[in-house]
Amino acid sequence: MQFELTREYLDKIRDEITINNSQFIEKEIIHLHPADIAEILDELDRDEAKFIYDHLDSDLQGDVLMELDEDVRQNFLESINSDQLAIQLENLDSDDAVDILGEMSVEKQLEVISKMDSDNASELVELLNYDEDTAGGLMQTEFIKAKLDWPINRCVIELRRQAEEVDKVHTIYVVDNEDRLVGTLSLRSLLVANAKSIVKDVYENTNMSYVYTNEDAEEVARVMDKYDLVSVPVLDLQKKLVGRITIDDIVDVMREEADKDFQMASGISENVEHDAGIIKMSRARLPWLMIGLMGGVLGSQVIGNFETQIGAIPSLAFFIPLVAAMGGNVGVQSSAIVVQSIANGTSQFSSILSRVKREAILGLLNGVICGVFIFGITWLLQDIRLGISVSIALFIVIFFAAIFGTLIPLILHKYKVDPAVATGPFITTLNDVVGLFIYFAVGMMVFGL
Amino acid sequence: MQFELTREYLDKIRDEITINNSQFIEKEIIHLHPADIAEILDELDRDEAKFIYDHLDSDLQGDVLMELDEDVRQNFLESINSDQLAIQLENLDSDDAVDILGEMSVEKQLEVISKMDSDNASELVELLNYDEDTAGGLMQTEFIKAKLDWPINRCVIELRRQAEEVDKVHTIYVVDNEDRLVGTLSLRSLLVANAKSIVKDVYENTNMSYVYTNEDAEEVARVMDKYDLVSVPVLDLQKKLVGRITIDDIVDVMREEADKDFQMASGISENVEHDAGIIKMSRARLPWLMIGLMGGVLGSQVIGNFETQIGAIPSLAFFIPLVAAMGGNVGVQSSAIVVQSIANGTSQFSSILSRVKREAILGLLNGVICGVFIFGITWLLQDIRLGISVSIALFIVIFFAAIFGTLIPLILHKYKVDPAVATGPFITTLNDVVGLFIYFAVGMMVFGL
Repeated sequence: MQFELTREYLDKIRDEITINNSQFIEKEIIHLHPADIAEILDELDRDEAKFIYDHLDSDLQGDVLMELDEDVRQNFLESINSDQLAIQLENLDSDDAVDILGEMSVEKQLEVISKMDSDNASELVELLNYDEDTAGGLMQTEFIKAKLDWPINRCVIELRRQAEEVDKVHTIYVVDNEDRLVGTLSLRSLLVANAKSIVKDVYENTNMSYVYTNEDAEEVARVMDKYDLVSVPVLDLQKKLVGRITIDDIVDVMREEADKDFQMASGISENVEHDAGIIKMSRARLPWLMIGLMGGVLGSQVIGNFETQIGAIPSLAFFIPLVAAMGGNVGVQSSAIVVQSIANGTSQFSSILSRVKREAILGLLNGVICGVFIFGITWLLQDIRLGISVSIALFIVIFFAAIFGTLIPLILHKYKVDPAVATGPFITTLNDVVGLFIYFAVGMMVFGL
Repeated sequence: MQFELTREYLDKIRDEITINNSQFIEKEIIHLHPADIAEILDELDRDEAKFIYDHLDSDLQGDVLMELDEDVRQNFLESINSDQLAIQLENLDSDDAVDILGEMSVEKQLEVISKMDSDNASELVELLNYDEDTAGGLMQTEFIKAKLDWPINRCVIELRRQAEEVDKVHTIYVVDNEDRLVGTLSLRSLLVANAKSIVKDVYENTNMSYVYTNEDAEEVARVMDKYDLVSVPVLDLQKKLVGRITIDDIVDVMREEADKDFQMASGISENVEHDAGIIKMSRARLPWLMIGLMGGVLGSQVIGNFETQIGAIPSLAFFIPLVAAMGGNVGVQSSAIVVQSIANGTSQFSSILSRVKREAILGLLNGVICGVFIFGITWLLQDIRLGISVSIALFIVIFFAAIFGTLIPLILHKYKVDPAVATGPFITTLNDVVGLFIYFAVGMMVFGL
């Protein structure tokens, strides 16, 4: 692509800032895309960033502010006075403005709002009421609507009038006299339609998609994805049109969702940025570590029951980590597939039984392969009886781990628990404990202890 | 939302199909959104699905075909004759048509292409040449372009002429006489502009985003996401405009990417659907299981070195799984954050050292908390010397696991290996082995063995 931020270029920018070279900023930086400017600012320290920021006009300042990393922005907001902020928020789309407003302290919020013109302010105050993970929290109040009995050219006039304020228009929403959404009119059909026809004759009202303000952000993402929408209208509970959500905001929701799932699978329970505070990061990780510890303690109790046997044949202990780890690995593999197909909503009705059957067959196959493999190695390295114990135990452990790994997320999902929680340490821990028991039970039989 | 497929409704549809009730299909099904019809067809068996499919007109048939699950579609394609398929592919956007074409056998491809009109066919044949994971493989050839010297109303006429063929128009691309992209014209500016002005006077040419045909799909996703684009023009290597990519296709790329990362982190090396064949699934999982096995064997060698000590104090063996598991868990947690911030391209220049320092501090903190906790439990359940051994070992293991978990993905990334590979079994296995060694070394010192 056109712009790429290199380390060298960043160093050059730093040097120019050090010598207060305004000309450089005005010649090279301010013509970049706001997202590129924000990328530069993200890497600079606060004073350097402020130097560039002060060279931007207030329109661009708002756009750049919105594109900054959340933590950089938070730090940055403190250095901007409320009058400036009020102007910049007025220039932004309402959904972006309310996001930034939501990151400020309540005092700062009050201060900034008091400096804004009252129309803009009341809009933002209303938007602030919505939970940020709902359609209401994502929507913007800038959109263009037309009434059923308007002539087409009035739509064009309306569009021209609002063109300044509404940034990305893709669709005109058609409402009845009560402001209830009844259909849509694409810009294309507006261009193609005869200027004298009225909206009622040319608008589309089949397969209309919309969401309600209180709907979950993930549900909005699902709808937009399923129906390939670029924007979706938002209705209040009286079916009145109150906003719209555009695809770029939903892309962010989807990525956050994917990040959260990935972190969950890796045993991190709160969604944390890579640069969050130490205490917050510790708190996000401890729940899983504690589950792991409890699992380890349980495991120690299981092994404790076989203390005499270990005393007699210490080599039995050699393969404890192997058996425990493999149970965990297989369980995580099986559950990942289930968690993912639940998250993507694919084949929702294919029966639980057939899933479990597939994983069981797969477990048998992989169990045999791994079992044969480890039998050879163990026989070679130790002796044949240990080889028999380890390979039989491993086979059984893999088989059961595959079944547990499939069943647990399915069961959690049935009881409305997010199955992403089920992967990672939870399944690993369960399979550890069960695996150890199987291993020692098999070992006792083989060695006749 | 409006349509939700329930088990009851699905059963009802099945019943109506059994009694050949065409009226029901025509009254209830064919007015649904293609994505909803596809959702129903995904759940039915092939003959039932075919019954509904035959009731749709050919336009709708194409749209539904495109929305089906890939494996359902593959099964389904066999039951449709080439003449029908040729018509349906002609009705689809070129990017969707070429996707479906790409799923057929070469014989079927040749057959279907021979039945299409030659313009459509040659377009598709050209698109088939691109790797499906590049911009060329994602783009569609339906877009509207205008020349710099055209009057605005000619754009409107062009738009009207092509309106049938180009489904979702958001932007008109402006090209020079050599067909090279020079800027864009939004539909909104078209509506707002004076009919007599010419393109040159009203088009936008600042901050223009585009991609080249050979660019990676992930890079296209990054660009569209960063600049909040709804569609992006695709240029060939002579900078000629050859296609465009719309956001809905990129959303699919992003989701596949997230799925792949999630599976990688869960130890599945190929991207497999939840309903892929057993052999394919087994092959995707075995590499990680083999790494796990090798790690287990290494672990057994480490423990083997302490055989006499275990014989003397079997209770040392009780906490083997705990130490091994905790090293793995902490390592995965640390690496997940790094892998994610690499994938999202955040703060690319913040130094490796500061990352490692953060994770080391976090490791110290969590190590102390977990260590104190396990000391209490082990003392209670076993004896104080075992408590001291386990807690000190655990503290050291957590500390090192945090550092390894951070360093390994950073190093892999530096050497251009996908760091998503580094999470999951690889780090788990490494930490297992190192952890065991630390544990027994500490145990020997504490017990004076």
